Amino acid sequence: MNEQPAPEDTRSLPRVGQLPPGPRNSISDVGDVRVGHLTLAEGAIQTGVTVVAPHGGDPFIDKVPAAVSVINGFGKSVGLVQLEELGVLETPIALTNTFAVGTVAQAQIRAALEAHPRIGREWPTVNPLVLECNDGYLNDIRALAVCEEHYGMALAARSTDVAQGSVGAGRGMSAFDLKGGIGTASRRAGKFTVGALVLANFGRLPMLILDGDPVGRVLAAAESSSEPEQGSIIMLLATDAPLDARQLRRLARRAGAGLARTGSHYGHGSGDIVVAFSTAYTIPQAPSAPMPSLAMLHESRLDPLFAAAAEATEQAIVNALWHAEPVGGRDGNSRRSLRQALAQIAGKT
Amino acid sequence: MNEQPAPEDTRSLPRVGQLPPGPRNSISDVGDVRVGHLTLAEGAIQTGVTVVAPHGGDPFIDKVPAAVSVINGFGKSVGLVQLEELGVLETPIALTNTFAVGTVAQAQIRAALEAHPRIGREWPTVNPLVLECNDGYLNDIRALAVCEEHYGMALAARSTDVAQGSVGAGRGMSAFDLKGGIGTASRRAGKFTVGALVLANFGRLPMLILDGDPVGRVLAAAESSSEPEQGSIIMLLATDAPLDARQLRRLARRAGAGLARTGSHYGHGSGDIVVAFSTAYTIPQAPSAPMPSLAMLHESRLDPLFAAAAEATEQAIVNALWHAEPVGGRDGNSRRSLRQALAQIAGKT
Amino acid sequence: MNEQPAPEDTRSLPRVGQLPPGPRNSISDVGDVRVGHLTLAEGAIQTGVTVVAPHGGDPFIDKVPAAVSVINGFGKSVGLVQLEELGVLETPIALTNTFAVGTVAQAQIRAALEAHPRIGREWPTVNPLVLECNDGYLNDIRALAVCEEHYGMALAARSTDVAQGSVGAGRGMSAFDLKGGIGTASRRAGKFTVGALVLANFGRLPMLILDGDPVGRVLAAAESSSEPEQGSIIMLLATDAPLDARQLRRLARRAGAGLARTGSHYGHGSGDIVVAFSTAYTIPQAPSAPMPSLAMLHESRLDPLFAAAAEATEQAIVNALWHAEPVGGRDGNSRRSLRQALAQIAGKT
Amino acid sequence: MNEQPAPEDTRSLPRVGQLPPGPRNSISDVGDVRVGHLTLAEGAIQTGVTVVAPHGGDPFIDKVPAAVSVINGFGKSVGLVQLEELGVLETPIALTNTFAVGTVAQAQIRAALEAHPRIGREWPTVNPLVLECNDGYLNDIRALAVCEEHYGMALAARSTDVAQGSVGAGRGMSAFDLKGGIGTASRRAGKFTVGALVLANFGRLPMLILDGDPVGRVLAAAESSSEPEQGSIIMLLATDAPLDARQLRRLARRAGAGLARTGSHYGHGSGDIVVAFSTAYTIPQAPSAPMPSLAMLHESRLDPLFAAAAEATEQAIVNALWHAEPVGGRDGNSRRSLRQALAQIAGKT
Repeated sequence: MNEQPAPEDTRSLPRVGQLPPGPRNSISDVGDVRVGHLTLAEGAIQTGVTVVAPHGGDPFIDKVPAAVSVINGFGKSVGLVQLEELGVLETPIALTNTFAVGTVAQAQIRAALEAHPRIGREWPTVNPLVLECNDGYLNDIRALAVCEEHYGMALAARSTDVAQGSVGAGRGMSAFDLKGGIGTASRRAGKFTVGALVLANFGRLPMLILDGDPVGRVLAAAESSSEPEQGSIIMLLATDAPLDARQLRRLARRAGAGLARTGSHYGHGSGDIVVAFSTAYTIPQAPSAPMPSLAMLHESRLDPLFAAAAEATEQAIVNALWHAEPVGGRDGNSRRSLRQALAQIAGKT
Repeated sequence: MNEQPAPEDTRSLPRVGQLPPGPRNSISDVGDVRVGHLTLAEGAIQTGVTVVAPHGGDPFIDKVPAAVSVINGFGKSVGLVQLEELGVLETPIALTNTFAVGTVAQAQIRAALEAHPRIGREWPTVNPLVLECNDGYLNDIRALAVCEEHYGMALAARSTDVAQGSVGAGRGMSAFDLKGGIGTASRRAGKFTVGALVLANFGRLPMLILDGDPVGRVLAAAESSSEPEQGSIIMLLATDAPLDARQLRRLARRAGAGLARTGSHYGHGSGDIVVAFSTAYTIPQAPSAPMPSLAMLHESRLDPLFAAAAEATEQAIVNALWHAEPVGGRDGNSRRSLRQALAQIAGKT
Repeated sequence: MNEQPAPEDTRSLPRVGQLPPGPRNSISDVGDVRVGHLTLAEGAIQTGVTVVAPHGGDPFIDKVPAAVSVINGFGKSVGLVQLEELGVLETPIALTNTFAVGTVAQAQIRAALEAHPRIGREWPTVNPLVLECNDGYLNDIRALAVCEEHYGMALAARSTDVAQGSVGAGRGMSAFDLKGGIGTASRRAGKFTVGALVLANFGRLPMLILDGDPVGRVLAAAESSSEPEQGSIIMLLATDAPLDARQLRRLARRAGAGLARTGSHYGHGSGDIVVAFSTAYTIPQAPSAPMPSLAMLHESRLDPLFAAAAEATEQAIVNALWHAEPVGGRDGNSRRSLRQALAQIAGKT
Repeated sequence: MNEQPAPEDTRSLPRVGQLPPGPRNSISDVGDVRVGHLTLAEGAIQTGVTVVAPHGGDPFIDKVPAAVSVINGFGKSVGLVQLEELGVLETPIALTNTFAVGTVAQAQIRAALEAHPRIGREWPTVNPLVLECNDGYLNDIRALAVCEEHYGMALAARSTDVAQGSVGAGRGMSAFDLKGGIGTASRRAGKFTVGALVLANFGRLPMLILDGDPVGRVLAAAESSSEPEQGSIIMLLATDAPLDARQLRRLARRAGAGLARTGSHYGHGSGDIVVAFSTAYTIPQAPSAPMPSLAMLHESRLDPLFAAAAEATEQAIVNALWHAEPVGGRDGNSRRSLRQALAQIAGKT
């Protein structure tokens, strides 16, 4: 019996959509985007921090064109108001659990203060950007385990090789009553690439759709579950296409299409938030520095990028589920992985 | 050979989602909602007007709580700015082709002026509400064939029995390179119902997903098509749940989830716009009239309605395709129906 | 007694703010902006059309970066949804009375169809842009006197020499219970200019503030007036600074500051809407044409333009009042001019 | 010479607008609104925390209908995304300096966790609400002097007697190159009251308008000043009128009219943000609790409230300036008070 191949081997990672992925099938296929994780996994503490750096430099000095789309604003993110107004990122993007947002924002402020003695003096203040999901089912979120230094550790660990699943901010997250977490993917649209990274913590099992297959209904048939959904999903999009902030806002909205195809109806309690940025150019902090002078993409050429944004987001969610290892956490709560769940069905057949 | 059953009989209308439909599986399952069509179908003129009346009375006197969600604002609708600000409908909702919007808006104004001699004198003006798609592939839209009287004719024809497919404003519409048009559906969420009516005129064939099945890829395999997408979709949601305008805006956003599941990524050139309204109460025109005093739904009870909005929208799109008859129009252009296309595949097997 | 100079001579046109005006103190100081009026003034018909052409060419072919700010959306304008999404103007901007919006929109469509046989065929449709106020106090707005040809006549009459007051769309408008209408002004901000043109039809007399002086309280002291306010104000801003659509949206919002300084609190019934555009570059209709490649203005250099937008708007409103001739209209209604009202006070002293 | 009355006595506190104030001319005239301050004033540390409690109970259990208007989003506030989506406050509103936002948000989270053991378990998380201005000119903002306990101390100090000027979060703020800070006022509109509380930290001296009088130009004549504006203003509105969240958003927008009348053009670098709430009813946390069933105010009755919002905001800003004591802070920086500045002019005459 042990000789048999494990049942999960019978199904391979679904590849959604019709566009080709980039070489790493990861947000790090775009420009110099790097991702770092800091994971806390001990007993009831199952949480962490994930940082996405938009380029190799300091985004306070070389700001990155960006935009936000709030699909469902049941969320406690920090920094979106200024991002919407000014259309730029000026820190790396941090992801963490809901109650760590203030702490991580303070860490971002402290890092900027250390790097720039003129901030808060003759220079303007810095706009921290921290997005969150509630990992309270597995993680003892009330313990406030994330500390300021964890932000720097996640940032320092950044790499083009992006770990997925139950890592970083994704450590304690659940999706579709299964183990959720971090997923990433990319899609090529002509000469441009769109990369997505998600922190997936949403959905109930019966809703799950895998590449069009409503597998959640089958998986859920034998179970009954009734915790109220308190999930969320953060979706980050990066592209190397030269888009301005208005165009990036349009791109961001398309992540919602990918999300919907996995079964979400943007649940009431789910903070579904998208941030999109371009790596094609930067905007200088100093008013005296020359502004970039490049042609934005013609509006009618956006459509392939929109398709790529939807596909990359859907794929990133699938990847988060696929790569997530099962995790046990507070009060005996645990989440099995998608592959375990699929194997169970396969085993029954 | 002729003896064989027609191939399309082998596949039945897909029923999407998990919630039960209302008795008519139609937007007319909600309150006293009625729908009327006026169809123009002669030679190169393949267009029309569809009117959705939110109740049996005069919505200028008894206004209807409502909200809008602009998923992609590449559209020429009239009346959305005031709808967003004041949170009410005050006319029936009219659907028509892009270049008939001004004409139908004038018809709505004229109708209100005739009914209410005080409008434009001591009373405020009326806010017409007309939404549109571009049926220019089949219809000679440049001929401006819709006249003001067509609005009244569509309104007069309103009924709980809602014709679907190539009728009314849907006459000349295309979706997924097939014949599109009008579709409707409803879903029950506890004791409440959400109904959807769509004017479907979006998408390219390879994108089409039918209840999770990416059938468009198969249908498109043998073809090559290259007209630029100039589509759009108007989605109307009605519910008998007591929601205020803010809650209705949240509900409206969920139509985008249903839309995405049919394959849309909210294309650049597609005006994807949702209007949602409640039939649970009305708001009097006269400031002296008593305001309704009823409890809105608790926010945390919205989730089943959100699921219903997504499912009803997806189903309404599927229904539009399913019920659409093939239509030939200007310059020899024509669209076959989804059922013809499916039959062709079936026939090949 | 008759020998005395007329009392209105004792007060000269207030010059608000601190920035210098352009050479014409007019929106036509910006790029090649031109303004044309068509005035209907016979008996109870006191209305018209005003057209602002953003440049000398065809804005459908060479689109103009633009944005909208809806301060109070109690208005029936056409074209704002697409303007917001795509960030461009593609027709001249038309102003008229509330019930003529559909008619003028049809005229814009017809003009675009005539100029471009491919519109509605292989090209996308055109987005008409018509903004409105309700001139129903003086004008028999129910008569629907504006016809399609009036739009073309107004456009043909365009000039750098902008008539103000009771002309064009301003013919029947009232402001502060006085005669309102069209006003224009400009302000220099370093090497750039911001021009404003308003259609002023808002406010009750006691609210009026002239360059900080709450003169309305004095003017209103002897009177009692109780018609409900059904006013509105449309504010157009033009600048030759190279701004993108996001920056133009920020600029547009500042018109609200100028408006407030004249006494407005953005009344419930007043559709207060701003459209801002830049003449620094155009965006080609054809996807194959090269996109403009110029440096946008650094965000921190926007502040002087914001001050200019507020001042130019306030001045344009003052100018509309100052230049408006008294008008009599339907049912014996009439509006005296600001200068008459000021003269009456001066005469009393 | 010393015998003469101090020159500032010659001018009394300007009373702006036309509506009567409430008994305290304070936000505490509305319902059970209370305000508390914690002031840090030692050497280079000139900062603090101000808390506005919307009622006497726990706003997490009895949520308060609320809305936000972002006039200029150059700001780092926390909690606005969820406030906008759900239309409720669920904590007291905290004001502090820019770099203390994360700390105070953590304090709000900790307070909610202590009060409610089910938060972050079976209950949803809490949405902290912290708004900020940058007091870095007087305060050594880089020292991060605000600690979590300061929030609780400010909350505990709440009272109907609202100290104004250089107190609480207003301690280190500057406005119009003068000492700014906390101001409050109220206005009656029929049977309802609108109260405003501002944290004023915006504007350059030449812009200052006092009740229509552009006194800033005179005050600034003898000076030259060139620090870049890095200001902001937070405006809070409370009303006892039964408004829903959509109506409160409309109310909030009117604070911008009051702000403009003091000379602001919503400067690029100024985070101008309004939060409005109603004390007329609360919304229960528990889905099982009955929802309030009361008639909202008829839309056409909002106008007097809008006027009151504009006037109360303008008055609150004037009051902040009028009551602010001069403060010296970091690096020898100091701000004189408005009354000192006025006295200087008076002395010169």
